[in-house]
Amino acid sequence: MMLGTELQLTAQGKLKHFLAIEGLSKALLTEILDTAESFTGISERQVKKFPLLRGKTIVNLFFENSTRTRTTFDLAATRLSADVINMNIATSATSKGESLLDTIRNLEAMHVDMFVVRHALSGAAHFIAQNTAPHISVINAGDGQHAHPTQAMLDMFTIRKLKNDFRQLKVAIVGDILHSRVARSQIKALNILGADDIRLIAPKTLLPAQIETLGVSVYHNMNEGLKDIDVIIMLRLQKERMANALLPSESEYFKCFGLTAKRLQLAKPDAIVMHPGPINRGVEITSSVADGEQSVILQQVGYGIAIRMAVMSMAMQTGGTGV
Amino acid sequence: MMLGTELQLTAQGKLKHFLAIEGLSKALLTEILDTAESFTGISERQVKKFPLLRGKTIVNLFFENSTRTRTTFDLAATRLSADVINMNIATSATSKGESLLDTIRNLEAMHVDMFVVRHALSGAAHFIAQNTAPHISVINAGDGQHAHPTQAMLDMFTIRKLKNDFRQLKVAIVGDILHSRVARSQIKALNILGADDIRLIAPKTLLPAQIETLGVSVYHNMNEGLKDIDVIIMLRLQKERMANALLPSESEYFKCFGLTAKRLQLAKPDAIVMHPGPINRGVEITSSVADGEQSVILQQVGYGIAIRMAVMSMAMQTGGTGV
Amino acid sequence: MMLGTELQLTAQGKLKHFLAIEGLSKALLTEILDTAESFTGISERQVKKFPLLRGKTIVNLFFENSTRTRTTFDLAATRLSADVINMNIATSATSKGESLLDTIRNLEAMHVDMFVVRHALSGAAHFIAQNTAPHISVINAGDGQHAHPTQAMLDMFTIRKLKNDFRQLKVAIVGDILHSRVARSQIKALNILGADDIRLIAPKTLLPAQIETLGVSVYHNMNEGLKDIDVIIMLRLQKERMANALLPSESEYFKCFGLTAKRLQLAKPDAIVMHPGPINRGVEITSSVADGEQSVILQQVGYGIAIRMAVMSMAMQTGGTGV
Repeated sequence: MMLGTELQLTAQGKLKHFLAIEGLSKALLTEILDTAESFTGISERQVKKFPLLRGKTIVNLFFENSTRTRTTFDLAATRLSADVINMNIATSATSKGESLLDTIRNLEAMHVDMFVVRHALSGAAHFIAQNTAPHISVINAGDGQHAHPTQAMLDMFTIRKLKNDFRQLKVAIVGDILHSRVARSQIKALNILGADDIRLIAPKTLLPAQIETLGVSVYHNMNEGLKDIDVIIMLRLQKERMANALLPSESEYFKCFGLTAKRLQLAKPDAIVMHPGPINRGVEITSSVADGEQSVILQQVGYGIAIRMAVMSMAMQTGGTGV
Repeated sequence: MMLGTELQLTAQGKLKHFLAIEGLSKALLTEILDTAESFTGISERQVKKFPLLRGKTIVNLFFENSTRTRTTFDLAATRLSADVINMNIATSATSKGESLLDTIRNLEAMHVDMFVVRHALSGAAHFIAQNTAPHISVINAGDGQHAHPTQAMLDMFTIRKLKNDFRQLKVAIVGDILHSRVARSQIKALNILGADDIRLIAPKTLLPAQIETLGVSVYHNMNEGLKDIDVIIMLRLQKERMANALLPSESEYFKCFGLTAKRLQLAKPDAIVMHPGPINRGVEITSSVADGEQSVILQQVGYGIAIRMAVMSMAMQTGGTGV
Repeated sequence: MMLGTELQLTAQGKLKHFLAIEGLSKALLTEILDTAESFTGISERQVKKFPLLRGKTIVNLFFENSTRTRTTFDLAATRLSADVINMNIATSATSKGESLLDTIRNLEAMHVDMFVVRHALSGAAHFIAQNTAPHISVINAGDGQHAHPTQAMLDMFTIRKLKNDFRQLKVAIVGDILHSRVARSQIKALNILGADDIRLIAPKTLLPAQIETLGVSVYHNMNEGLKDIDVIIMLRLQKERMANALLPSESEYFKCFGLTAKRLQLAKPDAIVMHPGPINRGVEITSSVADGEQSVILQQVGYGIAIRMAVMSMAMQTGGTGV
């Protein structure tokens, strides 16, 4: 699928929309990480507010329900002093037969400044970015099986924070690569940022065809794949995969691909364990690992706010001057 | 139905509640349009906030779901710096058997300042205005088949903006007049503001009895009604009318009353096309007309925010000094 | 049930969480009432905002639907200038199989400052307070049949406001004591504040065993129990009790325990009538009494905002320094 990622940047090369990692430079990804860094001190502040987006209107356009992701965008926008409109699309005008484009046109006419889009269809955020008014920025908060770039960037932020440098870093992504928009975005970001060795560990049924062309190595055996690794990224197992007969059972999956304390010992002693949440304890990861010393899962959540603040404020600063 | 519209004004003739166009003077309608005009520059402002209603609490009391209308009131209130409480009445105390009046009394006791009311029953907003505390203002956001005065005023704003003057203006309202609270409010506003010729174009089954007494002329033929017209207001066709056997079918309706590019040529060359949205493309209007050069449908949406800001700020300035 | 109420206070004896009346001193309850008093002038203010909690994030964590209670906490937080996140738990990650603790951990990681918790299980707010990060405060907005301490404190505020002193005060609580978290919290607060005579009036089937050990007297006859009383607190009758066969019928209940104008005459002439709402008119109370001169039911609602502002601001001032 050609998704026109070049539309993410202004003529001056500044971030206008944030739709996918694809097509962004190492310098720009680094600018996002550096901007997020400036927002991470927020937890120590008495007043967790920045006036950067005061008087701006951000619309959370969630066609797919996700309280957790919506809450992080809501918090990020609120802490930047923006006004937030949460649109529950299931009950909105689209259910009266209005087309997506008509909904977008109407919101534009209300002088909103940004759409944060979550949609079950791959390419939905791109479609909106391609068709919206020039002064509006679009952030992809997850589209189908395509991309989830703010999740990938919070993961990169977590890795940089704890491992300093991407070079010489061995990173394993474990689980359902086939259906994961998170994994797709992570692989691209790790490649751009120069990770040394990106390993995918998954059963054959949960790997896309020709995945090796993305600059990764593939393992079907957990014990082999985890050897000497610096960063382990566990993916969430969608339970509906069992019904689809792609997997025999949860316990079978756990036996082969679950992260246990014992398996973790195969990695480097200072390896970190990541997961985008929500966790299925005992399915893809044991509680002792999820809550253990090497787990940075909760730090990821906090960094997620900082990354969303970074992307929102960067994209908004190009508002009105864009394409 | 006698709805006591005189309660809309204070003893000094200022706007206290905004319930219906009925009973308001040309001077007051003009004051609303002029106040809205002062808010229309907002889209060019970097900070889209006015501190007029800071510290005021506005309750969106929506007994009927309408994401679009609620969003416009929400945005208008937020841009005036008010605090907004959205009440989902289906899941509130009224479902525990509490009466409407008890719900109102409780919200009053929480020291709220304004109710924005949407209700399936005609007269609901009036009933609340008649029974609420003196310091509270009520805005009607649509009650049954009775009135939708902010929609009518944004239409008047659009017409004045694009046609300057109401005198000598020929306006056609096309579609389901019988069930339309929008049409009722538009007819009254056009009469008060002095439109020269108000034409209703509709099948006999979708016209109320004795409609001519409202100072309008009636057409059952689209080609006749559109002749030399300056402003065409298309109404939304409620699909449930087919089920009620008031209409044979969508395609039959479109054949007789749909606005096509060809029919539009019967109007004046500079005629404008309006619609309250959401549009049923191919039912009451073709896409080429809805998206065409003469369409001002999206401008209406933007003006809707300005009109709601105007009405809210005017009504709130009389707060505490009331009836 | 031992619920560890000592965790409500910091080492310095300041309010950290507000979970139950149990374990709090008369001095602390009086401090809450005095702080609330300072917020009651708000209705006369043009700008109903205090900057006390600006930049703080409060999460309304409602596992049980209650629009009315949520709205009062929402308003209280907003008027203290806090940012509010409303979590609809039925549609959140817990429905994806995430545990309550994982949900809490994730919200903590987003640097929120306070949880307002409503839950159908007794002890839920305590559990969260025991397991949450040190800088976070927890307010119990009703847990199962255990406690509803902000409701009890707004009732105490109402009594103090209208009767000045608790000593020599005779208070009757009437209705379904057995299932009422409100009654439990009221009895404790009245005892701590030194009410002279606390009477429970209820059928035997709606009284807990050994209730007299709480320092109350029990009446099964309304006419006897109301004699010379200063304050009458009616409880809401949960209609599902009939289905449980604990009560014969609504009309039978009203005949024995409904508050009528005639029965009210048995109380002192200046007795006040209270009810936590929503009212079942004609079931536990007649309209003439609910809307009569001795009723202070709507004043309670307004005082409820002030009490919630008091508890929120007190608990938040100990934030970060706590246990």
